[in-house]
Amino acid sequence: MGNLSNRDTDRHIDRMAVPEVVINRLPQYVRVLKSLISDEIQVVNSQLLGKKLQITPTQIRKDLSYFGRFGKQGRGYSVNNLLEELKQILGLNYEWNVVLVGVGRLGRAILSYPGFNPDGFHLIAAIDNNPDLIGQEFNGLLVSSIDDLSSLVMKHNISIAIVSVPTTQTQQVIDRVIECGIESILNYAPTTPQVPTHVKITNIDPVISLQSMTYHLVN
Amino acid sequence: MGNLSNRDTDRHIDRMAVPEVVINRLPQYVRVLKSLISDEIQVVNSQLLGKKLQITPTQIRKDLSYFGRFGKQGRGYSVNNLLEELKQILGLNYEWNVVLVGVGRLGRAILSYPGFNPDGFHLIAAIDNNPDLIGQEFNGLLVSSIDDLSSLVMKHNISIAIVSVPTTQTQQVIDRVIECGIESILNYAPTTPQVPTHVKITNIDPVISLQSMTYHLVN
Repeated sequence: MGNLSNRDTDRHIDRMAVPEVVINRLPQYVRVLKSLISDEIQVVNSQLLGKKLQITPTQIRKDLSYFGRFGKQGRGYSVNNLLEELKQILGLNYEWNVVLVGVGRLGRAILSYPGFNPDGFHLIAAIDNNPDLIGQEFNGLLVSSIDDLSSLVMKHNISIAIVSVPTTQTQQVIDRVIECGIESILNYAPTTPQVPTHVKITNIDPVISLQSMTYHLVN
Repeated sequence: MGNLSNRDTDRHIDRMAVPEVVINRLPQYVRVLKSLISDEIQVVNSQLLGKKLQITPTQIRKDLSYFGRFGKQGRGYSVNNLLEELKQILGLNYEWNVVLVGVGRLGRAILSYPGFNPDGFHLIAAIDNNPDLIGQEFNGLLVSSIDDLSSLVMKHNISIAIVSVPTTQTQQVIDRVIECGIESILNYAPTTPQVPTHVKITNIDPVISLQSMTYHLVN
């Protein structure tokens, strides 16, 4: 037991220093491992993982080393074990309640996006400032005023907000969302809102994706 | 002049080996450099760039080294020069014509997204297979049948497709898009389509973003 508890401590210390870029890559590991399971592949080495993820095998081993030893030297990783470990590290074995803020055209498209539920993300509340929308239902969700956000967050244990409001309103809406105790925000507006250090914000930005494609079109 | 031409050759060789992850980071450099220009900052070192990009200064220097020497040791980079060089490397000084395939709820949200035009990406054609939509106009764009895609691609010199069709139709639609000569695809469906090696595809996947946020919620 002494050993076990040492290992836990080591892992805890390692985790404190995990770079953001590594964390951002882990969901892609999860996706690739799931596809390997569909293909009935049980063991994977860093070469194959690297090929699927377009990362060098050295980088793969380095990424995974932050979380302790997963594989045996030369034997590769058990796909199942690695997937389960990564899901645990990322908190993907939990169910997460999510509020959508902004039920315009984009917001309604997000509400009907089929990819959230299968991965444990549940849109459980919807917020808009348009009086014509408040009280209406979209995809089975009643639209509420932002004045109700605080109580909705507590009632439904909401930890994540998806914000799809016009660019000009994004900063003030995100300020309100943070005041209500939410610390994880996915922002769809083409802007980079300022948030306190304890809040994690990710911007969905199709232009960033297009801009790395044009590299291949000109080179 | 002999030196110059040697340098060009070296840069060409270097570029051949640029890893995909580095290319994918360059648009973020561009975004940060633009914000430095708004803040009237003229010189930036790898420490500040690293802080803004959440990458180590060593990685910054390594990323930029693929494209030749931008800065003088210890003096930092000229924000303006670095921005212009990166824009040229990424092909961002060109204007790009883009076709939207799939004019459903998400597609219409994409059509009204204000972020594309300012960065030189112009939605110039829209495609859907719904006879009720073909011939209608959305955001000033006439919806056409996919049978017209090939001639639209040639007429408007379209090099990029944004695909926002239901998951079940995504693979076959992307196959058609590639047949029409398009080699850069931005896919919004929660699936990973197979494409030939000469085609670059990027998936906009909000779940991937949510999955790296939950790491911070559980750790």
